[in-house]
Amino acid sequence: MEQTIDQAKLDRITEQILKQIDNGNGFSQEGAFNLRHNGVALCHGDSEHIKIRKKEDKPGIDVYIDAETKGEQVHIPVVVDASGMTDIVYNDFYIADGADVTIVAGCGIHNSGCNESRHDGIHSFHVGKGANVRYEEKHYGEGEGTGAKVLNPVTKIYMEEDSVFTLDTAQIKGVDSTLRETDVHLGAGAKLYVLEKLMTHDQQTAESNMEVDLDGEGSSAQIISRSVAKGTSKQIFHPKAVGNAKCHAHVQCDSIIMDHAEVSSIPEINARHLDAAIIHEAAIGRINDEQLIKLRTLGMTEEEAEGVIIENFLN
Amino acid sequence: MEQTIDQAKLDRITEQILKQIDNGNGFSQEGAFNLRHNGVALCHGDSEHIKIRKKEDKPGIDVYIDAETKGEQVHIPVVVDASGMTDIVYNDFYIADGADVTIVAGCGIHNSGCNESRHDGIHSFHVGKGANVRYEEKHYGEGEGTGAKVLNPVTKIYMEEDSVFTLDTAQIKGVDSTLRETDVHLGAGAKLYVLEKLMTHDQQTAESNMEVDLDGEGSSAQIISRSVAKGTSKQIFHPKAVGNAKCHAHVQCDSIIMDHAEVSSIPEINARHLDAAIIHEAAIGRINDEQLIKLRTLGMTEEEAEGVIIENFLN
Repeated sequence: MEQTIDQAKLDRITEQILKQIDNGNGFSQEGAFNLRHNGVALCHGDSEHIKIRKKEDKPGIDVYIDAETKGEQVHIPVVVDASGMTDIVYNDFYIADGADVTIVAGCGIHNSGCNESRHDGIHSFHVGKGANVRYEEKHYGEGEGTGAKVLNPVTKIYMEEDSVFTLDTAQIKGVDSTLRETDVHLGAGAKLYVLEKLMTHDQQTAESNMEVDLDGEGSSAQIISRSVAKGTSKQIFHPKAVGNAKCHAHVQCDSIIMDHAEVSSIPEINARHLDAAIIHEAAIGRINDEQLIKLRTLGMTEEEAEGVIIENFLN
Repeated sequence: MEQTIDQAKLDRITEQILKQIDNGNGFSQEGAFNLRHNGVALCHGDSEHIKIRKKEDKPGIDVYIDAETKGEQVHIPVVVDASGMTDIVYNDFYIADGADVTIVAGCGIHNSGCNESRHDGIHSFHVGKGANVRYEEKHYGEGEGTGAKVLNPVTKIYMEEDSVFTLDTAQIKGVDSTLRETDVHLGAGAKLYVLEKLMTHDQQTAESNMEVDLDGEGSSAQIISRSVAKGTSKQIFHPKAVGNAKCHAHVQCDSIIMDHAEVSSIPEINARHLDAAIIHEAAIGRINDEQLIKLRTLGMTEEEAEGVIIENFLN
């Protein structure tokens, strides 16, 4: 195990960003981890059951999670603080049958320059039979520069029999443009839970395309997307659930619209099997007026009250 | 008023089809009407408040409904029983401020030959302030021939202030292929109600695209779509509600899937205004098993029980 972080290299900006994207606790050196900084793996460490290997043919890592892994975490944060940089990384996860693991994979961009800084994380997950994976991904942008902060994640998930995958993604602040592509294939008895939280402000744009193929008998998916659009920002959601076997899927998208923002929700449900049961619900509306009035009578300013309502809505 | 129907021309097939598409009662000669048969206006009649004029530049009619019209019906059925015929017709409706009218506009195709018979009805409705319009459209196909029965309706609705439009469409049987295009623009305070009923069987295909633009303050739309897909038929729904002002919209699509059919529901809700509140719900699933068992214990065959459940679901 080579678990050493050169603290000198972890300057204040990087530390600050890590606090935002890696569980809010700053970067932990416990267990397996890989810190990518401006396109370079700054440091990484294995654990007894989780091995991280640098790819030979392209940027990125292969993460091997063995069958004995029980309740362990892997942290693979990415920090980009060089203005004008485009960082593309390919990370593949091989999760053995029966493993139980949490993968924390945030990305933060600090852009103090005038050029676009961009990170495209292309992640694939090969989830073995009966394995249980929780994948957390926080996206965050900051910096006083005029250069855009762009995050375009691609997530591919292949779920074998009776596996469980929880995808918990959040983009709360500072990302000027994002295009998310998520593809999931579910084997027999596999269960997918998706929780997507998104807030855009100013002139930001966010687009999220998701296709969930329920291929195996008895598979199920629950997708919950919650978003808040402020300023003149624009959001587009296009979740698609395809039932190719006896399966259940429930897709729910709720959005709060503020100021002059625009939200478009284009869910697609496609039943190709007699026993596919798929439900979709979507709602877009303004902030709850009654809640707002109640909180203001408790002495909050309008801004404070809105903040509380939005925080509750997203959590 | 020139209300004469040459009964000799109304042969048994035409009469039979009219029973299916025109309120189930056979064709009525009361009030304003226009019967189109194989691309020709076979007969038509005006009423005191409703005038029907043949278009000079293209096939079709202009229907003028004056402000004094209260609770009257206009019947404009279309029958195509010549195999291999493509009948395109442009019908425009001018509904004066405050009028209250029901327009019944079914189309039935009897195809006993091997060539495709097709009717494309392009209808536009100019709905004056405070007018109340109910538009019923039944589509039906029959005939022992192998030629396809195709119906591709285009419906454009322009709603002025405080008008009300109810669009009640049904395609229950025998239409091999349909592509529906519906566009609605709502002015301030306008109210739209859409009820779409669709059943496909065998290898039929049906696609329904609808865009509802809520442009005026206080406008509202309620769209309910219910469908049953049997055999190896395929259905695609793409309703879109765009809120450009303070408005309410509720879109609900429910489908029952049977045999090896396929249903795809792709609703789109797009809020472009702070006070636009838009909700969508969609569900696709198989026939309710509990209901089926209950009806079978009452002595029905499986087929009979399914028939009852489907009929209730569509009505």
